[in-house]
Amino acid sequence: MFNAVQKEIIPVPDNVKRALKEVLGEHRVLDDEMDRLLYSYDATRIKMLPNVVVIPETQEEVQKIVKICYENEIPITPRGAGSGYTGGALPVKGGVLISFEKMDKILEIDEDNAIARVQPGVITFNLQKEVEKRGLFYPPDPASYKFCTLGGNVAENAGGPRCVKYGVTREYVMELNTVIHNGEIIHSGKPTLKDVAGYDITRLLIGSEGTIGLFTEITLKLIPKPKAAKTVKAIFSDIASVGKTVKDIFKAGISPSALEFMDNLAINAVEDFGHFGLPRDAEVLLLIEVDGHPKAIDDEITEVARICEMNGAKVEIAKTTQDAAKLWEARRALSPAVAKLARTKINEDIVFPRSYLPEALPRLREIGKKYNLKMVNFGHIGDGNVHANFMINGLDPDEVARAEKAVEEVFNLALEYGGSITGEHGVGITKAEFMPKQFKPQELEIMKKIKRVFDPLDLINPGKMGID
Amino acid sequence: MFNAVQKEIIPVPDNVKRALKEVLGEHRVLDDEMDRLLYSYDATRIKMLPNVVVIPETQEEVQKIVKICYENEIPITPRGAGSGYTGGALPVKGGVLISFEKMDKILEIDEDNAIARVQPGVITFNLQKEVEKRGLFYPPDPASYKFCTLGGNVAENAGGPRCVKYGVTREYVMELNTVIHNGEIIHSGKPTLKDVAGYDITRLLIGSEGTIGLFTEITLKLIPKPKAAKTVKAIFSDIASVGKTVKDIFKAGISPSALEFMDNLAINAVEDFGHFGLPRDAEVLLLIEVDGHPKAIDDEITEVARICEMNGAKVEIAKTTQDAAKLWEARRALSPAVAKLARTKINEDIVFPRSYLPEALPRLREIGKKYNLKMVNFGHIGDGNVHANFMINGLDPDEVARAEKAVEEVFNLALEYGGSITGEHGVGITKAEFMPKQFKPQELEIMKKIKRVFDPLDLINPGKMGID
Repeated sequence: MFNAVQKEIIPVPDNVKRALKEVLGEHRVLDDEMDRLLYSYDATRIKMLPNVVVIPETQEEVQKIVKICYENEIPITPRGAGSGYTGGALPVKGGVLISFEKMDKILEIDEDNAIARVQPGVITFNLQKEVEKRGLFYPPDPASYKFCTLGGNVAENAGGPRCVKYGVTREYVMELNTVIHNGEIIHSGKPTLKDVAGYDITRLLIGSEGTIGLFTEITLKLIPKPKAAKTVKAIFSDIASVGKTVKDIFKAGISPSALEFMDNLAINAVEDFGHFGLPRDAEVLLLIEVDGHPKAIDDEITEVARICEMNGAKVEIAKTTQDAAKLWEARRALSPAVAKLARTKINEDIVFPRSYLPEALPRLREIGKKYNLKMVNFGHIGDGNVHANFMINGLDPDEVARAEKAVEEVFNLALEYGGSITGEHGVGITKAEFMPKQFKPQELEIMKKIKRVFDPLDLINPGKMGID
Repeated sequence: MFNAVQKEIIPVPDNVKRALKEVLGEHRVLDDEMDRLLYSYDATRIKMLPNVVVIPETQEEVQKIVKICYENEIPITPRGAGSGYTGGALPVKGGVLISFEKMDKILEIDEDNAIARVQPGVITFNLQKEVEKRGLFYPPDPASYKFCTLGGNVAENAGGPRCVKYGVTREYVMELNTVIHNGEIIHSGKPTLKDVAGYDITRLLIGSEGTIGLFTEITLKLIPKPKAAKTVKAIFSDIASVGKTVKDIFKAGISPSALEFMDNLAINAVEDFGHFGLPRDAEVLLLIEVDGHPKAIDDEITEVARICEMNGAKVEIAKTTQDAAKLWEARRALSPAVAKLARTKINEDIVFPRSYLPEALPRLREIGKKYNLKMVNFGHIGDGNVHANFMINGLDPDEVARAEKAVEEVFNLALEYGGSITGEHGVGITKAEFMPKQFKPQELEIMKKIKRVFDPLDLINPGKMGID
């Protein structure tokens, strides 16, 4: 799973390269070794070389590229920022890789209707900055939000800390322009909150990991920017109490805008990385934010603090927005901080129904011990989405073998409690072999057939999701 | 469109009836004239006779029914409460009609995870009552909520007044068990807020109007019950100001939990029906509710009232919850009240992007005048979803012909502003012919092919949505 290799490399013949260059010009069709290398990896650190990299700037260019490739039976792999954790942007069969880096325009921010129309290569953070200037808000905030792209976010149905209250990317996509096999554009959705004409093709496309078609334009729903927020830091000495606290907060009728946890190893990794003043001896840390109307959140944060205390935590409400910002900066440093702990980070993102967290979290930690692996757990515990990280030396075959077994047990644990093998990262290459654990053969068969409706020759991002 | 007739009636041969009776017993397989008549209509008042009506009580029975019918090439039409406005539950091709009236059990309300597991025949209101007893909340509230069923709500992706803040049925469905052509059950989704494994089959099924498969079990997301609510009544003397008010409320960063309008004819219809004390001379009435934390909503309702006044309205904030309840009772009486205005109610539910309402609403009213038809407009103006009702004598062919032209103009108007021909009611039979207005041929072709993935012989609720 971590050492996936290209299956079958389809070269791009010269006549196809020439046709692509006619559309894009010489400088946006790259086929020298160095350029191909630059586009051969993503956050998995697996490397797969494309045969040619193309860089379109317009929807029409994408249409022409897809038409040329499809007619010549060349596989097409779309790529946003390459920040994915499951290999979604890797060209499993070589062929043409389409980088959306130059389709990075915010086409429109319509304040009256609270929608934004963007190209797929817009960086998530750039949209957020622009809409917040106008008193609007685009909630989905994957850890990579400063460099990942909205096209990738839609393809993976990206999440993030704020999704526990505001929902995932799926809840914000209103319309999509999607280029399919013959180069035609399928338009789906409407820029309205309600629209029930026809099948919901938009939501079939969201989370399809680029295997159905290529997004060229995205309309996103925006909401009013919350007027205020408060953060509480709660330190626990055992993990089961954390699970109970999460349950109790929701049962009190409070919907936090973030409810994040990090275990002792995670806390120490962050402190090594940036000295944020987190308690190095804490077993578990919860960071909880509530947002909304200033008068409401004063009450709510006090109630959250009380619930944490009742469950045995040492609690501190951030006094200023600066104090709160520092806590969230620490949380955001987690991903790079943890990555420093070892050569290879196996980053899984399983999900448990909330009520099972008190039971499941201690069992999760046992898996790391059983296989004698350094395991760091953190994540979006408010929605049951746990990032279970095994920090290994990828060059040590024994450690890799133990990690593979451990990951399988992690997935089994999530499924045992009715959860999912992936909450945010998608399936891609690395989880493809586990799809039969979560789905029956007929369910996978249906997904395969749906892919074929849009992509009869299996050339659009092939080799992904276990449905090729 | 209003006088749709059965296309081709497939009779159910005796051997199939016998097989069905073996599964269900004599008394749950109905084929006498009177029983068939009872299941031959819905809220469209179009009549289409099924050949046989079957009433399963379990998932396993549904599986067997579908298997028997499919093997014998008998069309299958699922039916909830028959409260749909577009003919979704009518057996266009005769055959077997499956009524879910006895699959009406709430299987589980899991307070810890805030989810409910139900059979498809549960009445929406019954679930709402049960979860509210536990401090939880199921927001979708179609006008028919006291008798419509959750299976039908999922099939149609039902909306309602509260959806402007809380989203439509789609946002609350977590898992589905769906019986497909061969009698097998497809399970989709997980009872967690995040899950990105595989294609989003759940959301493909939501709003598919029963044309893909038959739901036998539904897991719904619940949220904390809002702690308090306040309502304001605002009376306007012109419709363009109403559109501007709606825009201004959202631009102030307020997300109302209902934002409903009714025009003069609607107000008078309600007053004739129930004497709720609404102002009979008002041109337009807005009812606006905000809900949430008690301290926050005091501020918000004051701000909403101020915005209405600035736009020229006469405003009154309901002093007590009883006063507020009376206003909402008036709103809920609208559907039956308006139905009394004429023999036939043509009830359309177009959607406009919010910003176009000031311009579109006066134009909408002109259509009624142009065709000399009694036109009543009301609806969920907060999300741009307008119920445009033509009250006609369905026995007068000239009036019917004018109404058909008027409806087409109404759809054209919605599409001209980038809206949709249906926000809540679905396509069914009555809007099927208009699908090519909203979709390109290739987009419709894709929907047809997706249907065939699940239903190769086109026997599952055939003749609907313009994709047969």
